[in-house]
Amino acid sequence: MDSTDLIIFGASGDLSARKLFPALYHLSAAALLPESFRIAAVARDELDTEQFLDRLKSRMATAIAAPHWSEAQWSEFASYFTYIKADFSDPKNLDGLATWLDDARVSLFYLATPPSLFAPICDHLSIANCLTGDCRIVLEKPIGEDLASSKQVNETVGRYFREQSVYRIDHYLGKETVQNLLVLRFANRFFNAQWDQSCIDHVQITVAETVGIEGRWSYYDSVGQLRDMVQNHLMQLLCLVAMEPPNAMSAESIRDEKVKIVKALRPIDASNVSDHVVRGQYTQGWSGGVSVPGYTEEQGCTNGDSDTETYVAIKAHIDNWRWAGVPFYLRTGKRMAEKMTEIVITYKKLPHNIFSNADNIPNSLVIRLQPNEGIEMKMVSKLQSLRDKLSLVTHDLNLDFQGSSEMNRIPDAYERLFLDAINGDQSLFVGRSEIEESWRWCDKLIGACESQQVATKTYHAGSWGPAKAELLIEKDGRSWHA
Amino acid sequence: MDSTDLIIFGASGDLSARKLFPALYHLSAAALLPESFRIAAVARDELDTEQFLDRLKSRMATAIAAPHWSEAQWSEFASYFTYIKADFSDPKNLDGLATWLDDARVSLFYLATPPSLFAPICDHLSIANCLTGDCRIVLEKPIGEDLASSKQVNETVGRYFREQSVYRIDHYLGKETVQNLLVLRFANRFFNAQWDQSCIDHVQITVAETVGIEGRWSYYDSVGQLRDMVQNHLMQLLCLVAMEPPNAMSAESIRDEKVKIVKALRPIDASNVSDHVVRGQYTQGWSGGVSVPGYTEEQGCTNGDSDTETYVAIKAHIDNWRWAGVPFYLRTGKRMAEKMTEIVITYKKLPHNIFSNADNIPNSLVIRLQPNEGIEMKMVSKLQSLRDKLSLVTHDLNLDFQGSSEMNRIPDAYERLFLDAINGDQSLFVGRSEIEESWRWCDKLIGACESQQVATKTYHAGSWGPAKAELLIEKDGRSWHA
Repeated sequence: MDSTDLIIFGASGDLSARKLFPALYHLSAAALLPESFRIAAVARDELDTEQFLDRLKSRMATAIAAPHWSEAQWSEFASYFTYIKADFSDPKNLDGLATWLDDARVSLFYLATPPSLFAPICDHLSIANCLTGDCRIVLEKPIGEDLASSKQVNETVGRYFREQSVYRIDHYLGKETVQNLLVLRFANRFFNAQWDQSCIDHVQITVAETVGIEGRWSYYDSVGQLRDMVQNHLMQLLCLVAMEPPNAMSAESIRDEKVKIVKALRPIDASNVSDHVVRGQYTQGWSGGVSVPGYTEEQGCTNGDSDTETYVAIKAHIDNWRWAGVPFYLRTGKRMAEKMTEIVITYKKLPHNIFSNADNIPNSLVIRLQPNEGIEMKMVSKLQSLRDKLSLVTHDLNLDFQGSSEMNRIPDAYERLFLDAINGDQSLFVGRSEIEESWRWCDKLIGACESQQVATKTYHAGSWGPAKAELLIEKDGRSWHA
Repeated sequence: MDSTDLIIFGASGDLSARKLFPALYHLSAAALLPESFRIAAVARDELDTEQFLDRLKSRMATAIAAPHWSEAQWSEFASYFTYIKADFSDPKNLDGLATWLDDARVSLFYLATPPSLFAPICDHLSIANCLTGDCRIVLEKPIGEDLASSKQVNETVGRYFREQSVYRIDHYLGKETVQNLLVLRFANRFFNAQWDQSCIDHVQITVAETVGIEGRWSYYDSVGQLRDMVQNHLMQLLCLVAMEPPNAMSAESIRDEKVKIVKALRPIDASNVSDHVVRGQYTQGWSGGVSVPGYTEEQGCTNGDSDTETYVAIKAHIDNWRWAGVPFYLRTGKRMAEKMTEIVITYKKLPHNIFSNADNIPNSLVIRLQPNEGIEMKMVSKLQSLRDKLSLVTHDLNLDFQGSSEMNRIPDAYERLFLDAINGDQSLFVGRSEIEESWRWCDKLIGACESQQVATKTYHAGSWGPAKAELLIEKDGRSWHA
């Protein structure tokens, strides 16, 4: 690997302490970082490197599980660091960084900052003459709040970085099970051969969180669950489930196939939004045995009123040859009964049931992203019984990824993504056109919700969302998996 | 259930003590026998009922595992019995039985005798006027030793019993996993949808025994493994794997589909036998850590010479739409390395491998009949590894039937078969045309072996058969599963 410098803007932020530095620590411990590697931690605080590291160490020690933490490892990790103070509002502040950078090395700029800073940081990096040599940029979501703002961000960034140097993170793509989904689909003829409308009845994608809005009320209220979760994470999962086999595992091939799916999504507009979208907002309820406030009682809500959705369920259609007639039911919400991310592929029922005394139970495949990454295949077998000659029973064939690792832990998504960005592999990062096409579809849907005044239905915190979301799927003779 | 009498000819034989009576005991303990049920134990020995039961009890107590044996249960079971002495060579001997029988009850004649007695027993039953009312007959294999003798048996039996009253046992059909194979195939669209030449590369069926010929040298030597195992057991397994979905789970529908498969088997004749059949005979070797004699050193072999095969491997083709181009490799032998019965479905390789750093590993489905009845699905997933981004690894999804029972034991095949014969359900019994078509195919194959002098290759007891059997499959670029 080339000598590499990682420059993290927002180094004292929450994401950095919880995810980015722990991921780098693990990569360092596994000797997976380049031989010559440096980290510039950029933030506004008035600190020197030693002070920054002191702070970081105490936060890291709690973020990293006991068997993996060692003082010796920390010392090696700490040796990568230089702290650079910079107020991003003034390009002059980046002079220190410019001096520190080295043309002969790869510079990986990681923007762990509010998106409003993406453009100014790029501008200032350019003015301060930081963008010479092999420069790459890593962006965290959200990339805009709609198609227009997303284009704006991409265009600003694109002025300084070629698309091949832009690494847009959707951390779901770094998850082991999500990568495994590609292997499952494209390395197993068994699954691949019937991955279409001839065999599959419908697909469900659920991203349920138990947390509320975690103190980010004012941000969240301006965005809502659709923009915060559907446009990126659920759309990515949908693409990976639905896309055609790419020609190769290259970023270009994969992105091409994903964009085709987004473009094939049937528009949800004023004509069909009321049948295809359910919005919800949580009210007071229980989470983990504790009473929790409703959304409009959360800290940050000043007027006790909001129409923002904290839950959304969508029935989507992909208008292409493979998926004609196969609905994709998506749902995601805060303050749900369980923290759970899963994709459920339900096969069609038997065309003819020769087991007359048994129900016609469809097969299904459950791909669990959390908790307990793994897959489950629900199949039917014979109940061992003399009394009932052909009683059928449903079994789960389980594959738990915990047990199928050469590692003693499941690596965090950020480890994979850091490593790939360092190696220049974009296949698990999101391309510009994917994001913009996704916004195009979501914008239309959001606009239709507004114009048709799709009401925000309440649901109790700790439940599975509003009753109307059950109806969305049950009117089709189906039901949510959990 | 109708009041039923079971008349067992050969009641003091080995099969009766090891299999038939223990199966009936278990059915009795589970209260699955008809409310009014009697057993006539017919044999040549000079005994009364009490003496017969005394003998039987000591043999049963060892045949039935501890938690299932109880004195009270035995007493109830013993109360069904009447012992009837009869030398089958004289019809007069059946007068006692005729008196005992009752027209108002179902009479189920079970012939656990050498097949040479099938015809005389039928004749004598008729002469002694035993065949009035609802009479059914249960026959054990072998039904003949070739097409001609098989027809003769069927015709004799057919003179007295309609085909709907003839229950030909192949005890493999009574095994839970064999019945489960039907459920697997026809209750799971997942499996059914790709059960053909478009997805499957080849099928292997293995029936390996560790035992030798167990003291039956002179009988076995006149028959050989082809007639003893392939014509019946392997043919039945092949039919169940290969047949089209029957219209219903009725005996007629299932038999119709099975016969179609046997008829579609491509003849193995003088033109192709040398490429399609390997015969073997075991020599001295080791079994379970003990030195065991070769086939021609077994007790009963007088001249130390024989050309009879104790092992056979066959490459078969089914010339129909579903299986065109998919070879079925069959093998069965005595004195193999392991006792093992399994069916392996190997899927085709990926048409295009996008995981350039990984082998193109085909999926497979292993259906284990013994030991440990169950199924295993071999699939490919991602090795959890940061170092290798897309290393693939093969996993087994396991379904162990031991754990999926409403019973505390796996019932023996004979329990299912007795129960079905009592209930008049023929679906797990073998039809006349199946047997005869199977003989037709086997006769041609055996004739070709003789005319082309297909040599009997030696293999050591405790091995996996002769080296040439490896070649049979390896020349096609494939290999035996175990």
